[in-house]
Amino acid sequence: MKSKLLLALLTVTLAGTAIAQVKTEDAIKYRQSGYGFMAWNMARIKANVEGQYNKEEVIKAANAIQAIANSGMGALYPQGSDKGTGWEATRVKPEFFTNKEGVTKVAMAFNKEANEMAKVAATGDAAAVGAQLGKLGGTCKGCHDDFKAKK
Amino acid sequence: MKSKLLLALLTVTLAGTAIAQVKTEDAIKYRQSGYGFMAWNMARIKANVEGQYNKEEVIKAANAIQAIANSGMGALYPQGSDKGTGWEATRVKPEFFTNKEGVTKVAMAFNKEANEMAKVAATGDAAAVGAQLGKLGGTCKGCHDDFKAKK
Repeated sequence: MKSKLLLALLTVTLAGTAIAQVKTEDAIKYRQSGYGFMAWNMARIKANVEGQYNKEEVIKAANAIQAIANSGMGALYPQGSDKGTGWEATRVKPEFFTNKEGVTKVAMAFNKEANEMAKVAATGDAAAVGAQLGKLGGTCKGCHDDFKAKK
Repeated sequence: MKSKLLLALLTVTLAGTAIAQVKTEDAIKYRQSGYGFMAWNMARIKANVEGQYNKEEVIKAANAIQAIANSGMGALYPQGSDKGTGWEATRVKPEFFTNKEGVTKVAMAFNKEANEMAKVAATGDAAAVGAQLGKLGGTCKGCHDDFKAKK
């Protein structure tokens, strides 16, 4: 039991070290990249729903959002990265680093709807994709409202 | 037969329109985001191979790379986007827009190795992941050498 606890502590320590090895500026750039790439995919799902619908394109876009959402981007928010410049100055609010419960809630909602989007996209049902895009976009907004400063 | 041809032409035209709707600066920002996010995932696969190996983290990273690789980023290279600023000034070479055969070759090599990386990651075999990371990284370099200007 004791050795298990030690092993667990060691794992946490090593994981902490691995995260610390990513420079703050790089972590900010990487996370801005993740959101930036998802923005493209959200935009083209919207364009498909509102215009000519291409099932394969929507599937590719939804799969990219899903994989990024599930990639573990939490690791890109090391302590101290409430300030710093990646591609541009971060706009994360300090609350992101203190309100763990709130962050977990918005992150879980986002993951859930991103996973659901990939499922709905696979059906090729444009109306259902449109409805799911609204839900998914709502989880983006939920996090931005609470944890991202306006420009 | 004639109506099929007309339909095909119409489809091409509409697809062209959809792509044209993405502003050049946005297209550049989106593609820089995709590569930026893949850079994080390449880096953490490398860190896992060289340090403590976490199978789940490597799978997440490989899945993100795979989904981005298969997302259809070619649409983010509209004509005229050899110049312009997204997150930063693009460094794509003009050859990217004229050497279709060369671009197709590097793009297909990249997709192949990204798909293979996701498969190898799922096995949890650290040595095989390390070998595959080398192959995948080689396809990144292959494109950079030919189509991306140095800083």
